[in-house]
Amino acid sequence: MERENVKVIIWGLGAMGGGMADMLLKKKGVEIVGVVGRGEKVGKSMYDFIKTERGNRPDVIIGTHEDVIKEKAADVVLICTDSFTRNTFDKIKYCLERKINVISSAEEMAYPQAKEPELAAEMDRIAKENGVTVLGTGINPGLIMDLLVVCLTGACIDVDHIIARRVNSLSPFGPAVMHEQGIGTTVEEFKEGAASGKLAGHVGFNESIHMIADALGWKLSSEVKQTMEPIVTNVYRKAPYAEVQPGYVAGCAMKGYGYVDGELKIEMDHPQQIEPELEGTETGDYIIIKGTPNINMSNKPEVPGGIGTIAMCVNMIPHVINAKPGLKTMIDLPVPRAIMGDMRDLIERD
Amino acid sequence: MERENVKVIIWGLGAMGGGMADMLLKKKGVEIVGVVGRGEKVGKSMYDFIKTERGNRPDVIIGTHEDVIKEKAADVVLICTDSFTRNTFDKIKYCLERKINVISSAEEMAYPQAKEPELAAEMDRIAKENGVTVLGTGINPGLIMDLLVVCLTGACIDVDHIIARRVNSLSPFGPAVMHEQGIGTTVEEFKEGAASGKLAGHVGFNESIHMIADALGWKLSSEVKQTMEPIVTNVYRKAPYAEVQPGYVAGCAMKGYGYVDGELKIEMDHPQQIEPELEGTETGDYIIIKGTPNINMSNKPEVPGGIGTIAMCVNMIPHVINAKPGLKTMIDLPVPRAIMGDMRDLIERD
Repeated sequence: MERENVKVIIWGLGAMGGGMADMLLKKKGVEIVGVVGRGEKVGKSMYDFIKTERGNRPDVIIGTHEDVIKEKAADVVLICTDSFTRNTFDKIKYCLERKINVISSAEEMAYPQAKEPELAAEMDRIAKENGVTVLGTGINPGLIMDLLVVCLTGACIDVDHIIARRVNSLSPFGPAVMHEQGIGTTVEEFKEGAASGKLAGHVGFNESIHMIADALGWKLSSEVKQTMEPIVTNVYRKAPYAEVQPGYVAGCAMKGYGYVDGELKIEMDHPQQIEPELEGTETGDYIIIKGTPNINMSNKPEVPGGIGTIAMCVNMIPHVINAKPGLKTMIDLPVPRAIMGDMRDLIERD
Repeated sequence: MERENVKVIIWGLGAMGGGMADMLLKKKGVEIVGVVGRGEKVGKSMYDFIKTERGNRPDVIIGTHEDVIKEKAADVVLICTDSFTRNTFDKIKYCLERKINVISSAEEMAYPQAKEPELAAEMDRIAKENGVTVLGTGINPGLIMDLLVVCLTGACIDVDHIIARRVNSLSPFGPAVMHEQGIGTTVEEFKEGAASGKLAGHVGFNESIHMIADALGWKLSSEVKQTMEPIVTNVYRKAPYAEVQPGYVAGCAMKGYGYVDGELKIEMDHPQQIEPELEGTETGDYIIIKGTPNINMSNKPEVPGGIGTIAMCVNMIPHVINAKPGLKTMIDLPVPRAIMGDMRDLIERD
């Protein structure tokens, strides 16, 4: 008997959701059985909004969530619509109550216990009641500045201090990211935006720091501290969705600090900008652990954020289907991995 | 009510087992309840053979396995006596049948399915029958050339080719390792030893390559190929347990190759030598993944083998206690992590 494909619904067909659709269409043993969209997209073909040509494939028509998310309509829904737990909570709940597993790309969902412990407990309860699992993941938070750090501490007898640094290029990103990061603004505008909270910058330090601390058994003694500074360019910089004159803001440098017993234990350093190489900045991911032994990891250039998030969300599908019911985070599940074979081979049927 | 400590027995109090004892004595919520030794060690105090001073601690007297491994006498036994599954199998079986979880530092046990599929199936069956878990781990195989590779592919949409390279120093190791690696021999002696199988070199390529292939869903189309070449020194080199004149063997360079559909997909490159810096060799761990995206990781200097193996075996204790019964490998369990808090907090009591 032919085994059934793993069935996936994508909620939100933007750059992330669309990329996941393209990735899934290249994989074996898995199929996209529905897409949830809104506004003009509803009623149109998924293939109108992704890179893959439809070819001979059956069409997938974008629907509202009420149309698409029926009880057990899929093995998993990939929800790619938000950055914040609070904004995506109702969507997650809707899927869980229809007994479908959920993977969320919302940054805060990588460790919702950090900022939204009550909603996290609520999701855990709903997931368990319905016998399904919910996970948040992505490249960062989700891997580079947290899970990979945790994994490397596995080689350590003792850990004294951790620095996770991600120096990356924003050039590939679209207008929404340019706006969130204050690219092209004056220094004054940037500082106003940072003060008022209008500039989101990177969302994830709280999540990454809490994930690392909880994994290692460190109890944070105060709230995670965060700073945000403009990266002012001395040269003209141009990317597909931004153009910045000398003296204006070409990037957003964020730092985060986690304290244990009042002592700084976990540092995050994440300067993001367009065209970093124009002023000699080498991009890369760095993890520096002071401990027994010391660890001094680098990955150059950095894992690109968009591709990495797409890959992480899709690659975690089998782990989420196989997991015990409830809210899970990356430190609860087996390590992520690329899926080069038939996805059905990875599903535990017992 | 006071929670009971996690109880550990160590079988084999050499450099690895002794190091694990020292590490465990620094941790909270865990205690060493027995040590299995042989020969002269039996009847003596564990503290005579490790670095930690006994101080006010209750003594731990080394016993035979019949004395120490009683039914449910501990939560886990760390077996640190062998490199090969076949040699350690009876010891593992003895513990599992007494309903105690096992962590083995034997290199082949990191993925016993590779070289000993029948013994692997047998261990899985015995473990399940007795409701306990068995895991093999260490720094390599166990993390650097396999689990860490797998973890980084999690950021990939596609993987085309993998190189794992570990350039390390053998200087800290003792006479047994010098002998296994052919340090101080002539080139002719080395080649004879390699041909006859007397020189073990690094044990683990089969395990690492099979672990990566299985994790990604690649089916190896032929046996793992392995080569072993002498590293001949041009300068005088001296380490605590070896002294090598110019023209003699200062190290052992091994390579391993994994093929999928006849195509080379996984390469291992592991030159090990004493005092590598004397001829300008920089030590480090490297992972180069050709895929979408490319990954280009380095960790310099390398994670030291001894400390890393000690840490990995101890750090996996909670994951092994929490796991479902059976034979597990590193790709089945949550990511390893340093234990900086109370080990009891990590044990799931449900």
